[in-house]
Amino acid sequence: MKPVRVGICGLGTVGGGTFNVLTRNADEIARRAGRPIVIEQVALRSTNPECDLTGIKTTNDVFEVARNPDIDVLVEVLGGYDVPRELVLTAIANGKHVVTANKALIAVHGNEIFQAAHEQGVIVAFEAAVAGGIPVIKSLREGLGANRIEWVAGIINGTGNYILTHMRSEGRAFEDVLAEAQALGYAEADPTFDVEGIDAAHKLTILASIAYGVPLQFEKAYTEGISRVTFDDVEQADNLGYVIKHLGISKRTEHGLELRVHPTLIPKERLLANVHGVKNAIAIMGDAVGPTLYYGAGAGSEPTASAVVADLLDVARDIATDHHYRVPYLAFSGIGDDDGGMPILPMEDIVTAYYLRLLAVDRPGVLARVATILSEQGISIEALVQKEATEGELVPIILLTHRCREKHMNEAIRQIESMADIAGPVTRIRVESLDEQE
Amino acid sequence: MKPVRVGICGLGTVGGGTFNVLTRNADEIARRAGRPIVIEQVALRSTNPECDLTGIKTTNDVFEVARNPDIDVLVEVLGGYDVPRELVLTAIANGKHVVTANKALIAVHGNEIFQAAHEQGVIVAFEAAVAGGIPVIKSLREGLGANRIEWVAGIINGTGNYILTHMRSEGRAFEDVLAEAQALGYAEADPTFDVEGIDAAHKLTILASIAYGVPLQFEKAYTEGISRVTFDDVEQADNLGYVIKHLGISKRTEHGLELRVHPTLIPKERLLANVHGVKNAIAIMGDAVGPTLYYGAGAGSEPTASAVVADLLDVARDIATDHHYRVPYLAFSGIGDDDGGMPILPMEDIVTAYYLRLLAVDRPGVLARVATILSEQGISIEALVQKEATEGELVPIILLTHRCREKHMNEAIRQIESMADIAGPVTRIRVESLDEQE
Repeated sequence: MKPVRVGICGLGTVGGGTFNVLTRNADEIARRAGRPIVIEQVALRSTNPECDLTGIKTTNDVFEVARNPDIDVLVEVLGGYDVPRELVLTAIANGKHVVTANKALIAVHGNEIFQAAHEQGVIVAFEAAVAGGIPVIKSLREGLGANRIEWVAGIINGTGNYILTHMRSEGRAFEDVLAEAQALGYAEADPTFDVEGIDAAHKLTILASIAYGVPLQFEKAYTEGISRVTFDDVEQADNLGYVIKHLGISKRTEHGLELRVHPTLIPKERLLANVHGVKNAIAIMGDAVGPTLYYGAGAGSEPTASAVVADLLDVARDIATDHHYRVPYLAFSGIGDDDGGMPILPMEDIVTAYYLRLLAVDRPGVLARVATILSEQGISIEALVQKEATEGELVPIILLTHRCREKHMNEAIRQIESMADIAGPVTRIRVESLDEQE
Repeated sequence: MKPVRVGICGLGTVGGGTFNVLTRNADEIARRAGRPIVIEQVALRSTNPECDLTGIKTTNDVFEVARNPDIDVLVEVLGGYDVPRELVLTAIANGKHVVTANKALIAVHGNEIFQAAHEQGVIVAFEAAVAGGIPVIKSLREGLGANRIEWVAGIINGTGNYILTHMRSEGRAFEDVLAEAQALGYAEADPTFDVEGIDAAHKLTILASIAYGVPLQFEKAYTEGISRVTFDDVEQADNLGYVIKHLGISKRTEHGLELRVHPTLIPKERLLANVHGVKNAIAIMGDAVGPTLYYGAGAGSEPTASAVVADLLDVARDIATDHHYRVPYLAFSGIGDDDGGMPILPMEDIVTAYYLRLLAVDRPGVLARVATILSEQGISIEALVQKEATEGELVPIILLTHRCREKHMNEAIRQIESMADIAGPVTRIRVESLDEQE
């Protein structure tokens, strides 16, 4: 059967991996696709020592690939927003299918891109944009297609998980482990995207769109990073039977969708709590299937390439048939701005449990006052730990609350912080049960 | 668009769940399939109180469904071998697509069924046959389609995992927990299929076929159950840092494929070791993606229905296009008897590590003799624990070995058992590392 001709734009980590996997496993891939998938052209700025480009047409102009009439599918693995957006829209306008690993592009410009793809009758596939090599997009959209999805919660940033894992296992501070991760190449020189949760929010936005069939709404995601998590909190959490993970969480509620990225206490026995280092995992709750979980490498050259090539396989199978039919399906089922009556909830309307850490003057009545404030907001306490006081020192008080509305917790914290006997800001980390055994 | 018309054969646990999920989530399913999926007819022996059949055409003859010209897809959820085989072949002969949850049918009669489906140009889909609601067939075949699969290892029988979980957590004997599982409905009155590993071997056979593109060869699977695992072994394993799980394991080696089901020691920190109760999980190693893992409910009414309906979604999308193209892909890529130069290895040629437990007379030289026997077979010892002897009693000796060929271990055990100072048979449990962090 006629081969599928691919143009790879970018020959960095992911582009190089895609090139090598397509080359090395060509026979296996052809067997599964029902036709060969061949690399027709590669656009690159500089050579990649990992890749043997002998006999391959190259260019340094990515737009040449987007306009090349001999190319069926453009693989966008550049990273960034502006050039990729223009490149992908040019490829679509030229009738090419697109496979991208670019989460930022999809989360921020996805609605525009899918609309253009829909009008042109081409596919835009993006399995590699979320959780690297884990086939979570396919699982969510196809494998769990029978389900009403109730929630999605995942470790979807490897850098953040690496840092939290090592803080916990080695009793180290955030800055210390971050510096190590940077030295090892697990974190960028400017780590903001990873440690402040922006990257995770991009991915969560994409997952939520597919889970609930709503438009991409990255701007409405709540994003809180891990840079303020201290080893003290990690240790207190451990004593209470919890692990702190940086999670992306999206839940369907009666009033709308929760969409939030933040450090989270989860019970130690959860599989998610046992996902270490740079690995990723996503738990998904469906009304029929119950809880499921998907684990693997969330980044890296060949793991991400694995997902890019899986998309190429889907495209290859589809363009053998009447691909117009599958476009909304393979691309994104929520084209347009209809949120199906499921708005993204403002953060103050989410409902969750909380871990609080306060520093108090060791004086009778302080605890009673804190408990009263919480109670007046309708918040009940699940556990309370007060450390023994050393003469004249401030005492740390650790609280676990039951679930309440964030708005009420905000008000309680405002009042607690205004107490004369409380020093400094209250540390607040959300707590989720995420039961996998249900 | 024209609806897809489904005939459900069997309205028991899985059939009833399929009926209810298709009915309850009809809108969501239609959105994802691009067309409605409607239940045209149900064949049942007796009513299911969970299902409201108002307005549904029923019959007590499953073959009527297979011949009904108004039906596009037959869902086979009867269980067993003979009637399902005849039913599925009749449906195929009548040009119908088939979705089945029947692992025994696929593992034993799959080659014949896929050949017939291939000739008729219809789809036979079977996601529900392995690990219930976990989309592992789709992940393996599509999501990891770029990879050369190196190994697959999974907890694919919920009953067995329930028993081992409770033996470990409550210090109870196999028979005791089995009786409880039977009382709770987690184990059949005749538990042979589950506890002796036959059910797991059916599922492993299917996974291996898809992983390596080889024919189904259930008859060549090595199958060992958990009925001889004692709490003593569970405890010794725990002391050494391991958990005993009943795994299906298939590995690609230089000389062929390993295909085996048996109790297995795995390190405590593995996610697989932390899969409890009736849940299932499958770890898959691909050359590009590295290790991945899929977790969820391996059985039950709606979890299994989730997979049946996912297959219906695939069929619905395919029959909108030129479905002939997708047949070998959706059904089974290894039609015919070409094993691609990868024969299933006889058990004596597999390579693994071992846990051994012996009862010895406490006399100088016994350990030396055991060590010599192992050494003569080229087997090195990784750890050895000898319990303190009470006067005149037999001493248990626990050994962990490095990896060796099963043939050599068989010979070593034969010689150890023939020693005058060794009482009774040697307990042998295989040990696997299955590193998820690679």
